[in-house]
This record gives sequence, structure tokens and C-alpha cells, in this order.
Amino acid sequence: MKKHNFSAGPSILPQSVLEKASEAVLNFNDLDLSILEISHRSKDFVEVMENARDLALKHLGLQNKGYQALFLQGGASMQFLMTAYNLLEQKAAYLNTGVWSDKAIKEAKLIGDVVEVATSKSDNFNFIPKNYAVPSDVDYFHCTSNNTIYGTQMHKFPNTDVPIVCDMSSDIFSRELDFSRFSLIYAGAQKNMGPAGTTLVVVKEDILGKVSRAIPSMLNYQVQIDKESMFNTPPVFSVYVSFLTLQWLEQEGGISSIEKVNNQKADMLYKEIDRNPLFKGYVANVEDRSKMNATFNLVNDQLKETFDSHAKAAGVSGINGHRSVGGYRASLYNALPLESVKVLVEVMQEVERGA
Amino acid sequence: MKKHNFSAGPSILPQSVLEKASEAVLNFNDLDLSILEISHRSKDFVEVMENARDLALKHLGLQNKGYQALFLQGGASMQFLMTAYNLLEQKAAYLNTGVWSDKAIKEAKLIGDVVEVATSKSDNFNFIPKNYAVPSDVDYFHCTSNNTIYGTQMHKFPNTDVPIVCDMSSDIFSRELDFSRFSLIYAGAQKNMGPAGTTLVVVKEDILGKVSRAIPSMLNYQVQIDKESMFNTPPVFSVYVSFLTLQWLEQEGGISSIEKVNNQKADMLYKEIDRNPLFKGYVANVEDRSKMNATFNLVNDQLKETFDSHAKAAGVSGINGHRSVGGYRASLYNALPLESVKVLVEVMQEVERGA
Repeated sequence: MKKHNFSAGPSILPQSVLEKASEAVLNFNDLDLSILEISHRSKDFVEVMENARDLALKHLGLQNKGYQALFLQGGASMQFLMTAYNLLEQKAAYLNTGVWSDKAIKEAKLIGDVVEVATSKSDNFNFIPKNYAVPSDVDYFHCTSNNTIYGTQMHKFPNTDVPIVCDMSSDIFSRELDFSRFSLIYAGAQKNMGPAGTTLVVVKEDILGKVSRAIPSMLNYQVQIDKESMFNTPPVFSVYVSFLTLQWLEQEGGISSIEKVNNQKADMLYKEIDRNPLFKGYVANVEDRSKMNATFNLVNDQLKETFDSHAKAAGVSGINGHRSVGGYRASLYNALPLESVKVLVEVMQEVERGA
Repeated sequence: MKKHNFSAGPSILPQSVLEKASEAVLNFNDLDLSILEISHRSKDFVEVMENARDLALKHLGLQNKGYQALFLQGGASMQFLMTAYNLLEQKAAYLNTGVWSDKAIKEAKLIGDVVEVATSKSDNFNFIPKNYAVPSDVDYFHCTSNNTIYGTQMHKFPNTDVPIVCDMSSDIFSRELDFSRFSLIYAGAQKNMGPAGTTLVVVKEDILGKVSRAIPSMLNYQVQIDKESMFNTPPVFSVYVSFLTLQWLEQEGGISSIEKVNNQKADMLYKEIDRNPLFKGYVANVEDRSKMNATFNLVNDQLKETFDSHAKAAGVSGINGHRSVGGYRASLYNALPLESVKVLVEVMQEVERGA
């Protein structure tokens, strides 16, 4: 029986994508060769890379607007470094909404000055700071749109004239936004886009070339753009599966359609968290709740064993909370069916009836 | 019909590995979950990572000798930067045997002084320089053990007291060497070890911590060691398939056994290149020939169409030479069966008979 996979990442992918990926490991595009053993310069893979880059921009509404899409390696953690290396000449502003923002700040500080415009660290990041000002004299403003660990999400972004750089690792392609407000977006693939091993970077080309330092080739966005995301051997399989997932999203109707389902899933689960007297949500302000990761705790920890065994029996997988928060976290990424949320809600109600 | 895959990389993997990998994309370890959608912190994947790191060291005879094995992202190109970042305080010596050495030198020059001890660049790298001296006052000596583009291979390494750093991307696990002579070995997976998307780094821990600069976390070997190669989400699938390939190598009898087969394959092909009047080898000195990549040209280019069509009809794939060398390149990595070389030799003889 296929599990109801609520894993925070690497996370659930569409079953049709998994089936195509599995087949391509044996025989890709009827070449009688595996996707794992063909040259990245072969016509078949170059097409995958080009189409994946185009499709990523198309989903975000950023085609023909001066943006480039890259599939790089190293995860968001490498982007913490690369964004600063390529954009930070003197000073940058960072909003601190969790461990990942914190790590981004740490790496940027090796490169230049960092102003932390606001933080929710003293409350273990259980809310999104608001009413901060973005200084006008910074090279860019950096934020994390969704915080998987705490289950918070930015639903508004500041109005500012400085370039906005956003880590969208855990909510990219999940909701409509005016993506042209962002000068650089990056996202590790392993939530809404594909397997671990590649990172999407979408960058407005006119923000590049403004720092005075020499940038090592592998860390240089312009080099990666000039080489069409193939400066060196790319992570072929991860890019291919990401492409399949982007195609799946297109077939589902794109971001606008998937957002409706994502809203249904989140509404259903939060409604139960708020209604069921056995559970409480972790996030302090309801308006900061993430539609991708719902964090909640048992009011009475003695019910943990009962809840866990009911969940397991129902095929619910991957709902343990992050160690820094505890409790539970149900990740509701694009590929998770509404049906899986129904099953989880039924488990919560079962335990309530038995308690 | 499965092809005879002579691709230079990404390149052929054992069929049994491809079958297990394909299955794991649908259902990994009977978890009813795909290897692509499980947490990298899950017990099942942590085991894969630990076992892969152990097995890599075991194959190289480096267990319990102060070495650590890491599976990182970014390919050899990222290692060009990381080796210099972590080890180059003042000056390093580089042997220039091809495009990849050249690129390593370029990146290192951003970090410190580089002495090029010898180069074969003026002869388009068709031989391995010898009789150079490694200065005793450098932080390390860097070399590339095998040069895929030109089909040259280092069969001897210099006697020196400075740490040796070696890019073994295209011949790791293919032949017995005293690997303890090297302080740092790195290798992109996509030749002898697995699919693109991960890079093996084997580093002697006592050479670290000697440079004065602050090293960004993702580029810092010590950080990666301390986090057991999971500082951030690793390229799960690429590591898994590399592990399967390392297991396959163990079942085949390890490096000593595979080296015998590799020698047979190289002997068979070079013998034909030297015997057959239609072909000539590219490498100037026979003793510098690579056992991994045999480069050769048609004496008469007008036979190209005939040779190519015979090769294609026999299912021979991936033998086009690199654009900077031209002609042909047959890559004979570990997973290529002797049978495939026999087929290629038969094609060469067929064309000879028809000419």
C-alpha cells in the first residue's frame, strides 16, 4: 500500500512522475540507454534542460522579462553563499524567520555587512515579523518565504525599491504571487519540484555584474547563465525528474489550479487542529500559518503513543515535528493528494473519540 | 537491444545497478515509498550514506588511516575551488595535463599563488609531462590522474613530501594504487562510481585546519566531515546509486579484480588501434595511454561515414571524440563489459576488410 507521505523534504512526488522516472532509469526516451548513463551533452538531455528552464519561468510568469532559470547543485545552503558572493558589495538586509534565514545571514556575513531588519528568534520563530523597514541603502533584501520547521509563511512581502532575494525552497510553485517583484528566487528541488540534488535559481540578469570581487566560476551566476546551466556536468537525473514534475504541474493546470487544492488541504487540516480539543497549533498568529507545513502539538503528550499508532495503521508517514519544535508537522506539498489530508483528519478524530 | 555504451561520462553503469535503482524509484527497501521522497534523515537513508562512505574507503584501502569519505555536490569543478579554499595558504604546485587541470589552476589562482610545474598544453595535451620537480615549499601538489579528453593517464606519481591532491574523476576504483600516498582525492561520480550529481571526496583529516581564511560552510571540508556528509540535504539518489555501484564492485572482487578486466579491455582495443592500418592512436607516447579512454583517429577521414554506420549498426554508442581532439574516444570504464570491446574491434576489422 502506498503511504500517505507528509514528509517535510525530500517529500512526496506525483506517482506518474515516479513511474516515468523509474522507466527512464532503464530506458530513457527509447534510446535503449538509461538516463543515468547518457552524456549531458546529448541532444536528448540538452532538450530536457532547455525545456525545464523554460517551463520553470513559464509557471512563474517570468518568460521574456529579463529572467534566467538555472538548475544548480548544492541546495539552498549553497545559495546562501552564492547570493552574497554575487550581489553583496557593501551591505544587505535580512529578515530572520528561522534556522534557514539564520544560516543565510551567517554565510552573508563572511562576504559583507548584514542588517537584520527583524527577527522572531526569541519566540522560537513562531511568527513572521511585520512592520520592519527595509533600508534604502542596501544591495538587496533577503527573506525566506516559508519556514518548514515552524510552519510559518510570509503572506505579504515588503514594498521596497531594493532588489528582493527570496529563498522559496519550501513553497515555490505552490501559490500565485507577482514573482516579478523578486530579483532572485532560489529553491532546493526536494519539496515541490523534484528530488534532492538540484536547486532552481531564477535571477533577473540586470542585477548581476555589480560587485567588484572576482567570483569563482562555480559560484558565478553569470558564468552559469552563459553556459546555459551546463558549466559542468549537471545533476542529470534530478533535473529530469524536476522537469517531469513541472510538466505534471502544467497538466494539473499550473500554479493557479494547484493553489486551490493547496488551500483546500490547508483549510481542512487547520480547521481540525482548531476544532479538535486534543490538538493545538504551534504558530502564534493564525495569519502567519503556512499552507505547506502545518505544525501542531498534542495538548496531552500522554496520547502520543495512541496517536502515533493510529496514524501508522492508516498509512500516515512523515508527520513527526522537527526536533527544535517537537510535536507534529504535516507537510502539504503540491503532490500530496487531498485524500491524504482526509485520512489524517480521520485519524485525529478517531483518537478524539477514543480519548 | 541494450547498447554498447562507450560514453565518456555520464557513462555506463552495471545493469544490475540500474535495475535496483529503477525499483527503488518506485519502492525503496520495501518502505512503500520512493527513494526520491523519503527524508535524508530517515534510518534507511542514513544507513546508505554511512555504508557508502565506509565502502569507498574500504575499496581504496584507506579505512582506519585518518581519512574521511564525503559525498558532496558540484562535481570536480567545485573541488577545484574547495581544495584551494581549504588548503592553499600561500602557494600550491599544479601539473597541467589537460582542460580540467587548467580549470583547476584558474580557480586556485583566485585564492593564492600557483606554480605550474609542467604542462603539455603546447601539444594539445597528448602526453603526460615527466621529470618535473615539485617544490618543497608549496602547500600541496595537484594533479589529474586521467585525462578523458586526450586519453592520457598518469601511471606514476611524483615522490614528494608535500601533500598530493588528485582529481581522479575518470579513473577512481579502476586500478590498484597506494592511495595512502594521496592526502586528498576527489572524483565526480559519473564515470566509474555512479550517476552525475555527487562527488566523492576522500581527505586525510590532518591536512585540514591549516589555512587562516574563514571558509564558507558549504565549502568547508571540516564542516562536511563534522556533519557526516549531511550538512544539508545530500543528493540522495546519486549517493544511493553510487552505493549500489560500490557494492557491485565488491561483488566483482574489488579493484584488483576489475583492474584485470580493465587491462584486458584496454589491451584488446589498443592492440587493434596499432594493428589496423585504418586507425592511429592520438596519444604521442604509448606509456601515457589511458586504460579508461582510448582516443584514436581514422587515417583517412573519408571512411568516417562508413565506420560510423557500421558502429551504429552494431549497437556501439558514444565513441565520438571530444571536439578539441576530434576522431574517436572509446571509454572503457569499470561497468563496460569485455564483450562490448570485442564488438568495437570487430567493427574496426569489418571496415578494414571493406576498405
